[in-house]
Amino acid sequence: MTVAQRIDLYPTRVSGKAVTRPRVDPTVWGDGPGPLTGAELERYDADGFHVFDSLLPPQEVETYRAELRRLSQDPALLASDRVVLEPDSARLRSVFEVEKVSTVFADLLNSPRLMDVARQVLSSDVYVHQSRVNYKPGFGGAQFDWHSDFETWHAEDGMPRPRAFSVSIALSENYEFNGPLMVMPGTHKTFVPSVGETPDDFHKESLRVHRITVGSPGEEHLTRMADQHGIRQIAGPAGSAVMFDSNLLHGSNGNITPFARSNIFIVYNSVENLLEEPFAAPRPRPQHLGNREFPRGM
Amino acid sequence: MTVAQRIDLYPTRVSGKAVTRPRVDPTVWGDGPGPLTGAELERYDADGFHVFDSLLPPQEVETYRAELRRLSQDPALLASDRVVLEPDSARLRSVFEVEKVSTVFADLLNSPRLMDVARQVLSSDVYVHQSRVNYKPGFGGAQFDWHSDFETWHAEDGMPRPRAFSVSIALSENYEFNGPLMVMPGTHKTFVPSVGETPDDFHKESLRVHRITVGSPGEEHLTRMADQHGIRQIAGPAGSAVMFDSNLLHGSNGNITPFARSNIFIVYNSVENLLEEPFAAPRPRPQHLGNREFPRGM
Repeated sequence: MTVAQRIDLYPTRVSGKAVTRPRVDPTVWGDGPGPLTGAELERYDADGFHVFDSLLPPQEVETYRAELRRLSQDPALLASDRVVLEPDSARLRSVFEVEKVSTVFADLLNSPRLMDVARQVLSSDVYVHQSRVNYKPGFGGAQFDWHSDFETWHAEDGMPRPRAFSVSIALSENYEFNGPLMVMPGTHKTFVPSVGETPDDFHKESLRVHRITVGSPGEEHLTRMADQHGIRQIAGPAGSAVMFDSNLLHGSNGNITPFARSNIFIVYNSVENLLEEPFAAPRPRPQHLGNREFPRGM
Repeated sequence: MTVAQRIDLYPTRVSGKAVTRPRVDPTVWGDGPGPLTGAELERYDADGFHVFDSLLPPQEVETYRAELRRLSQDPALLASDRVVLEPDSARLRSVFEVEKVSTVFADLLNSPRLMDVARQVLSSDVYVHQSRVNYKPGFGGAQFDWHSDFETWHAEDGMPRPRAFSVSIALSENYEFNGPLMVMPGTHKTFVPSVGETPDDFHKESLRVHRITVGSPGEEHLTRMADQHGIRQIAGPAGSAVMFDSNLLHGSNGNITPFARSNIFIVYNSVENLLEEPFAAPRPRPQHLGNREFPRGM
């Protein structure tokens, strides 16, 4: 199938004015058994996110924190494309594709406690579309502006539908004041296109700078959606986690406190939703941002 | 008395390493009667701040919000030195010396409900050392890094002792996620000098930019004090207020939400603590930042 023949259910990076459209796809893709209860699935469907109060026991958190430190001191890794630094300092912001540099994290990504949830919600076999650890250091760790992940993955990675979700696992305490995840509950049911063409190699800029316009819903839409849906900030201890739909509007404020806010971030995608050519970008982003190695037709 | 003869109880803007010293002055300067109860005064003495759950009734909040809007649309005011803009945009950040541009705000500053608290805690007659309205707009309103106000007022304005406090009155809801005030309770009892000489006309920079080093306690001290004292973030509805000691470490994160966080900010100083020559700056800051018009020897 060539790009020209494709039907694009979620056109974005448009010129002129962005018009929102209702999501045509489900959020919960089946009703098979799995770790989440029926009530939890219903609420996830309505809100677009689910909180695990205690996903990892303290001892395991320590293991992953030690692994975070090890990665942050690996000179070869720090010199690689997998690493993103803070905009205002040389501090480490994120390391991508952690399953390739850490067997410890690879085991976590592939563990049944996560994979079973993914299979249940996406109602198919699943694979990891993207993974990263975020260090979000204290003393000026920068904000992430409001965005839908799916908007980017669709435009720049060629993900056809929002049949994917992210899990963010806290490896340090997420206080209400060190830049925890904020979401607008229920916004995953509306697709907000972004205005403007995608610049070439846009990801080199968009992952690092403070304020972006391409890939963002725009202030008018954000104001309306915040008024309508409200904002929920998700704090919690180390070991807690939140999963959220790929199209849920989310972001986080900066962090001037001394307390880092480290987490591991994993995106699960359905094998029935494999990446194609980008829907609105000159070429796909690199492998470490959007996994294209998953064998097709398995 | 000349500058050379003065004893400086709180030396700052030092060269080399900053050594903290215990505060030699009280926080509550007397035990006379006033609006605050004995228990409230004791807690203020220990923590360095006091929260008023409902200082202004809703109707009065509306009056002040209308006045905020009026000021933000006054071309003469916007072109004046009294105005500070956001670092990343042309949005209005603060208007200083509001009592000179607004009789509405002047009446509030001089109202007994505030003046009586100030007289009680500072145990003398009092006057307004500084006033401002902060607009802290949504969509990127910038952070205020951790600092002690007294460190600046002492170094740059010549305030001899920490016999002053600030009141911040919320004119819009302070959510936990739109950059509300954060404090480190109890840190008002320690003076943390800042390292480095004060540049000439430093205030033109320090009120606007993201990250400053002069006038800040430094990351090592901040980390230790946050570990020791913790951080308390003060959210509350419009009309609530918080008063805090001039030497309490405080700051606020940025605000990427669409919800502005506007407040009026008033500093009361004791008439027995009038400004002298700066303790560590080439010359005093302008009148709108540190009031020197209060008649001496009244």
